[in-house]
Amino acid sequence: MTWFYAFDLFGVAVFAITGALMAGRKSMDLFGVLVIALVTALGGGTLRDAILDNHPVSWIRNEWYIVVAVLAALGTIAWVRFTRPIPELGLLVADAFGLAVFTVIGTQVAMQQDVPVSAAVIMGLMTGVAGGVMRDIICNEIPLIFHKEIYATACIAGSLVYIVLHALPTPPGVDVTISMLAVLGIRLAAIRWHLQLPRFHLLDRDRHD
Amino acid sequence: MTWFYAFDLFGVAVFAITGALMAGRKSMDLFGVLVIALVTALGGGTLRDAILDNHPVSWIRNEWYIVVAVLAALGTIAWVRFTRPIPELGLLVADAFGLAVFTVIGTQVAMQQDVPVSAAVIMGLMTGVAGGVMRDIICNEIPLIFHKEIYATACIAGSLVYIVLHALPTPPGVDVTISMLAVLGIRLAAIRWHLQLPRFHLLDRDRHD
Amino acid sequence: MTWFYAFDLFGVAVFAITGALMAGRKSMDLFGVLVIALVTALGGGTLRDAILDNHPVSWIRNEWYIVVAVLAALGTIAWVRFTRPIPELGLLVADAFGLAVFTVIGTQVAMQQDVPVSAAVIMGLMTGVAGGVMRDIICNEIPLIFHKEIYATACIAGSLVYIVLHALPTPPGVDVTISMLAVLGIRLAAIRWHLQLPRFHLLDRDRHD
Repeated sequence: MTWFYAFDLFGVAVFAITGALMAGRKSMDLFGVLVIALVTALGGGTLRDAILDNHPVSWIRNEWYIVVAVLAALGTIAWVRFTRPIPELGLLVADAFGLAVFTVIGTQVAMQQDVPVSAAVIMGLMTGVAGGVMRDIICNEIPLIFHKEIYATACIAGSLVYIVLHALPTPPGVDVTISMLAVLGIRLAAIRWHLQLPRFHLLDRDRHD
Repeated sequence: MTWFYAFDLFGVAVFAITGALMAGRKSMDLFGVLVIALVTALGGGTLRDAILDNHPVSWIRNEWYIVVAVLAALGTIAWVRFTRPIPELGLLVADAFGLAVFTVIGTQVAMQQDVPVSAAVIMGLMTGVAGGVMRDIICNEIPLIFHKEIYATACIAGSLVYIVLHALPTPPGVDVTISMLAVLGIRLAAIRWHLQLPRFHLLDRDRHD
Repeated sequence: MTWFYAFDLFGVAVFAITGALMAGRKSMDLFGVLVIALVTALGGGTLRDAILDNHPVSWIRNEWYIVVAVLAALGTIAWVRFTRPIPELGLLVADAFGLAVFTVIGTQVAMQQDVPVSAAVIMGLMTGVAGGVMRDIICNEIPLIFHKEIYATACIAGSLVYIVLHALPTPPGVDVTISMLAVLGIRLAAIRWHLQLPRFHLLDRDRHD
């Protein structure tokens, strides 16, 4: 098992936990929690693979993705039931780590199919955030990504860093490592200092439909 | 026409009716009703086929799926307009029947592609419930599946029953029949006695974001 | 560059603008606006291509789709910031134009794969409206298409006109032109005179679940 594969499974676990917690806020039953956890953990990669025609998708090729997501969700239920809240900060840091892994994997998978740079960046972003967006849509919330501190921005930056480093003659593993650290660093800094990009406000009085 | 194909079209009709009724609650116009009915009836199978790379999808291969869904939606509008409410219980029983058919078909299609058991169960679940989830998301409701009595649970159980029986030397048709009866039985029992799995409650005071 | 390709890019730009404006109403930040603009402009065609197994999808094959959508979104932000509201009527007319182009392209792409007429009409409709539906779902609104004047109806009519003309011995370009004008004409007439199809009302007292 390579480091990168271990990271990937860690990302799956973390996203499954955020899914299970959101499902808990909506008072879902056991299987509802599992469904939301699976969608959050595997939705982004599945969407990417369907669009890239990259079959079979990860969790069909390798059963561990589903096993890890299900165990993470069950563990979350047990933990919250018997101990009490998961520390918010721990979760945010873990989520940032998952985001970093998924963004770089998504960009990498797209690049292997020789897509243009713009499409590779979108694939990195999609892999990183689409699972969380699906989680929020199913739970009838405006996706967190659009309200939190710098989030999509971190993915786009990390994806671009990967693409640039990958084109340079760097030693193996450097492109992946640095670009993951870029996503992680930007996201953690945004959490720590509540950084936000300026927002685009359009008042309701500006509309007439 | 085999029994199973007839069941499949019946499932399409039933899900189209639930879609048309939901669209009616949102006061949509004729084509809005048709769109929601089609999404509800065909969404789950389409998602499954796109993920399994199983092309062409059912309703492209065979026009009857669309015809049946459209007729069921039009019939629903006419029925409600000229007679009054569709009996809730009749609809729930029919929906349980559709769920049973779609779950078993989804599991079967996945097994034919030699996917792992966990992926086959997810495909059965997805085929059974995704159309209804799409219907509820488009209509801006928290998907019913997460609030109703045992629903995903019935799909998962039926899918597992099919996989076990299919691996055993049973006479032809037995695996399909027993597993459909499993979904139907669990779901009808849940409706009759309002059975629920315990829910996973996470209070808002447990969150800080 | 053919006229039709220019129209296609124009459709992308227009839908990106409607996405950016909706994102502005939700006070998203720069990258949130870009994401919504891209989903609105490219979501319908991507869904169609994934279902038709038509790979690579447009924006992977040709970078201009992404470039045009991003520029349109950035232009919208700048315009609204420095000048004030985009005239509602201008936007509606442009949106009708985009709808016309996308509907005809979607029908055409489906016909090239020899799908049945019913599936081709659904593909035209999907290409025309799915991006906007995704935009509204992500922004947690009931999709506009189900509340606005005749919208899906215009797509379905235009798609049918294309299919009929395409089967007849018409000079090249006539089928595309007339069917686009059909969508445009119906939609503009609906906007001008607030035409609506009768709605299917189902009162909440008719439900018991």
